[in-house]
Amino acid sequence: MKEIDFINNISAIIGNEYIGDDCAYLKDIGIVVTQDSLVENIHFKRDWCSFEQLGYKSVAVNISDILASGAIPAYITIALSLPKNITSNQLTDFYKGANRALYGAKIVGGDITGSTNDIMISITAIGKTEGRKISSRKNAKAGYLVVVKGEHGSSAAGLKELINGGNNSTLIKSHLEPELEYEFSKFLGENLKEDYAMMDTSDGLCDALFKIAQSSGVTLKIDYNKIPHKSFIQKEDVLFGGEDYKLLAVLPKDVALSSGGTIIGNAMEFDGAWVNISGTEYKFYDELKPFNHFE
Amino acid sequence: MKEIDFINNISAIIGNEYIGDDCAYLKDIGIVVTQDSLVENIHFKRDWCSFEQLGYKSVAVNISDILASGAIPAYITIALSLPKNITSNQLTDFYKGANRALYGAKIVGGDITGSTNDIMISITAIGKTEGRKISSRKNAKAGYLVVVKGEHGSSAAGLKELINGGNNSTLIKSHLEPELEYEFSKFLGENLKEDYAMMDTSDGLCDALFKIAQSSGVTLKIDYNKIPHKSFIQKEDVLFGGEDYKLLAVLPKDVALSSGGTIIGNAMEFDGAWVNISGTEYKFYDELKPFNHFE
Repeated sequence: MKEIDFINNISAIIGNEYIGDDCAYLKDIGIVVTQDSLVENIHFKRDWCSFEQLGYKSVAVNISDILASGAIPAYITIALSLPKNITSNQLTDFYKGANRALYGAKIVGGDITGSTNDIMISITAIGKTEGRKISSRKNAKAGYLVVVKGEHGSSAAGLKELINGGNNSTLIKSHLEPELEYEFSKFLGENLKEDYAMMDTSDGLCDALFKIAQSSGVTLKIDYNKIPHKSFIQKEDVLFGGEDYKLLAVLPKDVALSSGGTIIGNAMEFDGAWVNISGTEYKFYDELKPFNHFE
Repeated sequence: MKEIDFINNISAIIGNEYIGDDCAYLKDIGIVVTQDSLVENIHFKRDWCSFEQLGYKSVAVNISDILASGAIPAYITIALSLPKNITSNQLTDFYKGANRALYGAKIVGGDITGSTNDIMISITAIGKTEGRKISSRKNAKAGYLVVVKGEHGSSAAGLKELINGGNNSTLIKSHLEPELEYEFSKFLGENLKEDYAMMDTSDGLCDALFKIAQSSGVTLKIDYNKIPHKSFIQKEDVLFGGEDYKLLAVLPKDVALSSGGTIIGNAMEFDGAWVNISGTEYKFYDELKPFNHFE
């Protein structure tokens, strides 16, 4: 079963007021909240990363969702389930890495329990809105510009290095310690007065394009050649590679032009295909390359 | 390594401003937050409970911490890591149970990922303070009364039924679907103007007595015969059995008397032993029966 089917089942039980964006926006208390888990041998392998890198990435993937909402990273809680062979030094290293990925947030709690075999990490991040306009993937509008901040495909290429025993340390670092686009998010949070769409590209750039296009009911038309990426990265990785944790935003023109991001296209009235990349129409994301942890 | 040693290590890295209580109290945004995980074959066995019961208990243990803080249950996020053999019906049942344990909170998000073998559940609960006085285990004072709400030992006895193949459904229900003390918490939250201590008894009544006594620097003197429990429950289970998820509070006298809880003793200036139960001094909890998931 795919994650989307699970989500539809759950929506039927709990209602879907808050389902859709990666962060839930709790207006009455002025916060956004998100929770993501990383499981050993599903999301990471102990052989491929240090505990410090694991701590960094576990926190970063959650802070990334806060940045994508336009809110200010404020607090996180960390729940760890650890097998008995984890040492005190490993745990200390994990928290050193976690501390480097906070982007201004504070660690305020969590839980440590045992596990039978695998390490399981679940982190909740809270962002303060402080009057900022919060993004939603439903908020792209025809006439807005499509903006990306940060290079795409390096993380997927880094993962291939790890799988194949390669040693390109820049790519590997992109996968294990992705840098987040804090300043871009801050600029938008502080300057936008109108509705806008923004997502991180945790599941790939094309995934984010589809989700925003479908949720907003618009066509996103982009120029592949404008997408920032290292020259030797394969097109498949640029478009579909996950875990870069960069930002994709669909913004009113004036803010887009001053945002410091790269304009790669524009949003139009829906024309029958959700995404158009350099003239090729993409009608269904599932026909492309899915990146679904749960399969 | 024991959980307390891990916590000390972590405190050295991240600071300990928020470490101590089960909920972190985030005053600037008027919330408390807590996160707890349940791991298959550590905290539960699939054979012993239905998915609906699992959903109920997973949420209840987190809402219990919110109630112990004196705040109002408001929002939760649920992160599930599930092996491939979980069915859609099982997941639906999980959420049905979760829905029954909300005590007014709303499910607003979370995450679903794969896992290799075991189910892992990590839930974050957020409580709103709305001007209420929030409890801390540091806030017991000499002269206050020790109050419990709810019967103790039934959950531990229910766990023994499950282990031994017994069929006392009342005890088993106490273990799998503990009822929380919502009204008691609400009364205290709405009526207390002074500092007070409160904890849930997730790790046993005696554990909570020790934590409050040591954190507050007082001796808690109680009368065993006043502790509410079913008559046939063994003393060991009443004092040390975990997972009843009832409340222990140390309160100013006037509020204690009108709280609806059972007064089982009083707090005094520290006299050399943290806890005194019917005349027997308990100086070190570790000499007693520890209930430590991480060992």
